[in-house]
This record gives sequence, C-alpha cells and structure tokens, in this order.
Amino acid sequence: MGHSRFGDRSDVNLSELAFEAIQPSLEKSELTAKEIPYMALGSMGVWSEEPLPAVVIAEYCGLTGAGLVRCEAACASGSAAAFNAYSAVRSGQMDSALVVGVEKMKQIDTPTVLEIIGRAGYYMWEFENFGMTFPAYYAVHAVQHMAKYGTTEEDLALVAVKNHRYGAMNSLAHLQQEITVEKVLNSSVIAWPLKLYDCCPITDGSAAVVLASEKKAKELGVEDPVWIEAMGVASDTANLSKRETYVGLEASVRASRMAYRMAGISPKDVDVATVHDCFTIAEVMAYEDLGFCEKGEGARMVREGETEVGGRIPVNVDGGLKAKGHPIGTTGVSMLAELTKQLREEVKPSRQAPMKNYTALAHNTGGTGHYGYVTILRR
Amino acid sequence: MGHSRFGDRSDVNLSELAFEAIQPSLEKSELTAKEIPYMALGSMGVWSEEPLPAVVIAEYCGLTGAGLVRCEAACASGSAAAFNAYSAVRSGQMDSALVVGVEKMKQIDTPTVLEIIGRAGYYMWEFENFGMTFPAYYAVHAVQHMAKYGTTEEDLALVAVKNHRYGAMNSLAHLQQEITVEKVLNSSVIAWPLKLYDCCPITDGSAAVVLASEKKAKELGVEDPVWIEAMGVASDTANLSKRETYVGLEASVRASRMAYRMAGISPKDVDVATVHDCFTIAEVMAYEDLGFCEKGEGARMVREGETEVGGRIPVNVDGGLKAKGHPIGTTGVSMLAELTKQLREEVKPSRQAPMKNYTALAHNTGGTGHYGYVTILRR
Repeated sequence: MGHSRFGDRSDVNLSELAFEAIQPSLEKSELTAKEIPYMALGSMGVWSEEPLPAVVIAEYCGLTGAGLVRCEAACASGSAAAFNAYSAVRSGQMDSALVVGVEKMKQIDTPTVLEIIGRAGYYMWEFENFGMTFPAYYAVHAVQHMAKYGTTEEDLALVAVKNHRYGAMNSLAHLQQEITVEKVLNSSVIAWPLKLYDCCPITDGSAAVVLASEKKAKELGVEDPVWIEAMGVASDTANLSKRETYVGLEASVRASRMAYRMAGISPKDVDVATVHDCFTIAEVMAYEDLGFCEKGEGARMVREGETEVGGRIPVNVDGGLKAKGHPIGTTGVSMLAELTKQLREEVKPSRQAPMKNYTALAHNTGGTGHYGYVTILRR
Repeated sequence: MGHSRFGDRSDVNLSELAFEAIQPSLEKSELTAKEIPYMALGSMGVWSEEPLPAVVIAEYCGLTGAGLVRCEAACASGSAAAFNAYSAVRSGQMDSALVVGVEKMKQIDTPTVLEIIGRAGYYMWEFENFGMTFPAYYAVHAVQHMAKYGTTEEDLALVAVKNHRYGAMNSLAHLQQEITVEKVLNSSVIAWPLKLYDCCPITDGSAAVVLASEKKAKELGVEDPVWIEAMGVASDTANLSKRETYVGLEASVRASRMAYRMAGISPKDVDVATVHDCFTIAEVMAYEDLGFCEKGEGARMVREGETEVGGRIPVNVDGGLKAKGHPIGTTGVSMLAELTKQLREEVKPSRQAPMKNYTALAHNTGGTGHYGYVTILRR
C-alpha cells in the first residue's frame, strides 16, 4: 500500500498526487508498473483539472497498457474501485491489480464542492427545492437519534475528540491537533445539532493498494500478505424522504451482513475498524449498523471508550474522515491501506489496535447511505 | 437485454431513459428488480442533470438495495461497467447483475460536449495548447493511414455509406437515412480528411443487459442464454504525441488478443462484430487491430464488401456508432445487446449476420484508443 499526506495539496497536480501513493505501493509489492494488468481508480474527478483522469494518471505513473477504469459511488468511490479490482482478481481474469484513490477538492470554491456533494443524493428534489445540504441530511439523522435514544450533543463531540486525538498521532492526517468537547460545542453551528467540529474537512489526498491472487502472491514471495476475505455492497433510496427511519443507514446494515456472511465471521471477531465518520453522528450510527452494539447503544460505546485503543473494538484510530480527512474517492482506499498497517502491527504503538483474530473491517458509504461498501480483511 | 430508441431524447429525463432499457431487460430475464443484487452503470454523467446518477436511476427503476457503481472509461464506459459486473458474477460473489448504459448528451451545447470529450485524452496539453479536438485526433490517424497504405477519402466514405445503410434498417438508430459516397465527400470538412459524414452524431440513449451465472441461468430456466466467453482490457498513452504509430490503436490490439486467448478462439471464428466507429477511419483501423485482416488491408475489406451481411465478417450491421449513434456510456452496453440479438438470430433478415460458430465480438474504445475493451460472446 501507499498513502500520500492528506490536506491542502495545491503543491501537486492530480497525477503527481496519485504518484505519491502508487509509487510506494508498487515498491512494496515486488511488482513494477509495467507488470500491473489492471488499475481501478476511485475518484469523483469533477472538481479537478482532470475529470476523466484514469488514463492521464496511468501514463504519468508508467501503467500504460493496463486495463483502466474509474469507479464512482459518491463518497464510496474508493471502495467501489476496490470491489471492481478485487472481482477482477477473484474471478481469475487478472493475477494482480492496482486500486488507487485520488481526489483534489480544495482547488475549487466551497459552495461548488457542496453542490457537487449534494448531487450524490437526490439533488433536484431535496437540495435544490429544500436546501438540504449534506450537513443538513446528517442533522436529520442526528436529531432523530437524539430524540429516540437520548444521544446528546456532548456524545457527538466525544467522537470528534477521539478522532482528533488519533489524527494528532497520524503524520499523514489533514488535522493533527487535539480538540476538546468545549471546543466542539462552541464551534459554529453548521446544521443543528452538527457544529463545525462535527464535520469532516474538505481534503486532498491519495492512497493505493496492490491486490494479487494467492498464487501470484506466493510467486512474488510476499512474506506477510493481508487477505481480502469478503466485500459486501448495498444501496438505499436516493430520496431521503423515502427512508423508513433516520436512526441508521440500511445500506450499511445490508453490506456488512453480506460481508460477515461471506467471510464467515461475526462483528465480535473484528479487532479494528475504520468507519465512515463524515459527520460525528455517522460514526455513532455505524457502530450500531455494523453490529458492534445494539441500535441506540452507539453513544454509550464512545462515552465508555469502547472504540479507543484498549477498548473493545478500536474505531478510526487513524483519525477517521473527521481528522485524517475525506478526499472523496480516496477514502475507501485509505481505509484499506490503514487497516493493512494495523493488521501488520506497523503503526505507532499509541494508536495500534491490539490483534486477537487479525481481522479488520472497513466501512465506506456514499451519500447518506446511498451507497454502502464493507470490506473484511484478515492477516 | 433492453435498448431505448437512440436520438434526441429531450422527451425524457435520465432515469426515464434508463428505465426504457432496464424494464425490458428485466422482463426478459425472469428476474424482478428487487432480485438484482448489483448494478454497474456506464455513464459519463457530466453533461446531464445527474452527474452522480447510479442511485437516482436505481431508485427510479426499483433497484434500491442492490450494490451500485458508476464506471467511466471515456467512450468505453459501457464496456467498463460490463467488465465490472461480469467480474462480480464470474468471481462467484453475485449470482446475477445488471449492466446499464445511459447518456444524455444533447441537452448541452456542442462546444461543451467537445471540450468534455477532449478531456478523455490529455486535455491540458493537446486540446488546450494545440486545439486537438477529437475529430483532429482521428484525422491524424486517417492521414497516416492514407499515406502509408493508400487508403482514400472514398474508402472512408464507404464505411459511412455501409453503416448508414444498416442504420436505416434499425428502428432504434439515431440516423435512419441512407447516404451516398458523394454526399459524404461533399459534406463539410470537420478535420481533413474527415468530413461531417465521417463522424458519429451526438446522441442520447440507453441499453441494459442482465448477466447471470451458469447456475442462476439454469435455475431461472433461461432457454437460450448467450455467454460472455471472455473480456480483454488494455490502455494506451494519454498523450497522442507519445504513440509510436498512428495507423492503429495498440489498446485494441492488446485487448483483443487477451480476449481471443481467454476465449480460446481466433479472429476467423467471429461471425459478427460491432466495432468502435466513432469516425470512419476508426472502423478501418479496427478491422486491422482486431485481426480481421492484415494491417493496411482495412480499406480493401470495406471496398470488397467483406464486412457487409453476406461478406466474410459483417461489422456494425446495426448502423454502428456512425448511424445508430454514440451515447457515450451506453455504446458498450448497446453492442452487447445488439450482438445478443444477432446470436439469437432475432434481427431483421436484411441485417442478420449468418451464424456459423455462433460467436460475436464487441470492440469499444475510449478516447483515441486510450481505453480498449473487447468482449467475446457465444451462444
């Protein structure tokens, strides 16, 4: 795997940013760029100088000749690319494949970014007619969760505090400063009850992972492979108004159940997870939707430290979308890169999850659970 | 399979257009929308009212819950979606999957369409600096082919005449009128030697194909399945200036050789083909790149009628991109739909290719051979 520094990356163009992840991923894989038969790229693309970037990045990184595709599933584009490349290898058509996520979002103005993100849902009806921006979507979820389960603004703030604490330990993270509950509660209201520090930042960044079949990995003499055990995929309605409930994301439930079933494991077997915390409420809902706790118990998990290192199941100990950042098409690939390091016990001890089953879970959603992707990794 | 009428489809929105293909494809498949576990959508999206359309189309067509992705590989986006869904089924993760192509291109102005298409290549350098629009790219190919092999403007015109003749027999085609060599030669020069009638039109349209595993197809009692035998994928440089030659597309050569090898066939075994004739010269090069004849013999094939019904290997007897039209993300899926009908001998006798081996080939490129996808089908 390879992973760029996240943040404002106006110092590089899109291809250079992708190279920062692709180059180290290839170096560690014992494969050269010329030997890679297939690259799946996760990228929204629309806001960068290259809206159709796969071939441009491939040329820049020496991958010309490989089969190429760009995958888009809104904020789950990186996982969609991973599913595509994984399927190509698992089906026996490719013996290896490169998954790349890359996004430059900071070069255009914030209202345009917000509008494009809004199009991940049912833009025409809900965004254009009702002014439902993405923070407002998640505020609907937060309000219902608070009303039904007693989740508080302080509980949500605790998610941000935890993720900033781990972001401060991750030299690749966008936001590396610790924050306090007071700072979150006193920050500007974006869409009540969500405040500035309940929201992930707008970030540039890239990540890459090399996949190989078991046979190819053996041929290459890979000493310590991490295996994709299963991927689950699902979706939900485009219109939020057609959902039956707002206290969770059905696509996360369905995708995770599919992944657990195919991997033959239960949530209890997971040693470490990355979940899609685009807003703090999203992390609380993810605990529940993924079966880490019962519905309504998510806030208790964070209050009791169950998702910290040393707790029952450490979550987003890389900083999460909240502090590491969320370059849209990159996020799903960044999760696989982080969990690979976690499974190999290669991260700083202060944010290394203890391994019991050497099993990890990545949860990546697009839109407000419009797209759901869950990946189970095992070493 | 299902297939909308191609043309100016300002009468419907993007979801309605997709529905016109999805609905009949499901009806013929014995599956309901709710039973489809995965949909891969081929769409550029950028020029329509829905730049992130997968979830919106899924909701409109009753597919909510299925795993979703949009695939983009410029003008080969439809084939990229097919490869994604095919890999998901072939890998055993899905027992069925829906491949959809949809594009509405006519609702925005032509300069913007040309600019976006230009971004399929190395926009910043070649389009912005040198004014190399896509017709100009293909004109470079045509000029070199003419210089090296003696291909003439009349030869290129014959491709257009052939494809318009078949387009006139296809009630779903965008351009259904026959044309003459004189009409082509006297039409406006777009980028010499390419004239208006050497170029495919800008078209709206949709197509859909349901894939299933062998086991699932048997369970469903599908009487006359058409099998995907293999798919080949490849790419070439983003910069045209980095190519070694302009008389062919290396990505087509590589992708077709991969597909032939995996299917265990040779070009001689192909009964009927659809090739990516975005410009007439592209069809001539495709004959050669796919091994239907030697390099430099493409023009002879069209002069001698070898690629007409009754000839050695009928090509684009649905009208091709040239007359049927080229709604970008739809084209690859439309090819699979057309070849399925050809293999089942369900098209009008006047444009039905005679079947010997019941083997068909679809050739779909993105950009100027930036992306190459070749699919082998067999009944």
